Amino acid sequence: MNVENLFSNIRKKFPEEIFETLLEKNNVKLERIISSGQSTPAGKWFEQEKDEWVVLLKGKAGLRFENETEVIELTPGDHLVIPAHKKHRVEWTDEKQNTVWLALHY
Amino acid sequence: MNVENLFSNIRKKFPEEIFETLLEKNNVKLERIISSGQSTPAGKWFEQEKDEWVVLLKGKAGLRFENETEVIELTPGDHLVIPAHKKHRVEWTDEKQNTVWLALHY
Repeated sequence: MNVENLFSNIRKKFPEEIFETLLEKNNVKLERIISSGQSTPAGKWFEQEKDEWVVLLKGKAGLRFENETEVIELTPGDHLVIPAHKKHRVEWTDEKQNTVWLALHY
Repeated sequence: MNVENLFSNIRKKFPEEIFETLLEKNNVKLERIISSGQSTPAGKWFEQEKDEWVVLLKGKAGLRFENETEVIELTPGDHLVIPAHKKHRVEWTDEKQNTVWLALHY
C-alpha cells in the first residue's frame, strides 16, 4: 500500500499556490492545496459548478462569501461546504507557515 | 456558512468507535471516525464495495492488509487508498488520545 503524507513533499518556496489532485474518479475530485500567504486577487471570486467541501488542516486563512462583509477565519480542523455557484474568495492565508487544505469537489 | 471543526464535538468517553457522516451525495460518502484505543475484533476483516480513501489526522493507528504480515503505522497526515474488496483491519489505535480519521467512500 502506498502511504503518503499530507504535510510532506512540499516545496520550500513557491510563488503560486500549489494544487495537487489526490484522487479523481467519476464526478469526484479530491485536491490538496498549499498556500503560503497568497490570497485571491483583488476583485476576483471563485465560483464552481459543483459543491465543494473544504477543510483547513494546517495554518490559517480568511474566507469571504459574496454579499457578506464578515471574513471567516479558518484554523486547523475547520471545514465547511461551499455550495455550487456560491461566490467566494480567500482574503488572506498565513504568511508565516504553509496552509494546507483539502478540497473535495463532488 | 456553517463551519465545524474536525477536532471538536467529541464525546469525552465512548466505548465504541464513532462514525459520523459529514456528507453524502450520489455515490460519495465522507465520514469522520474517532477511535480511542479500539481495534477491529480478532479475526474480523473489513471489506468494502467501493474504493476508500482514508487519512489519519490525529493520534496513531496500525493498519493491516490481508496476506501481508507488516502492520502499517499511520501518523497524522498519512493517507492512502484502500481499493474495493481489499480486506483490511485496524490492528490498534492510540490508547492515550483520540485518533481522528476521515474516510471517503467513492
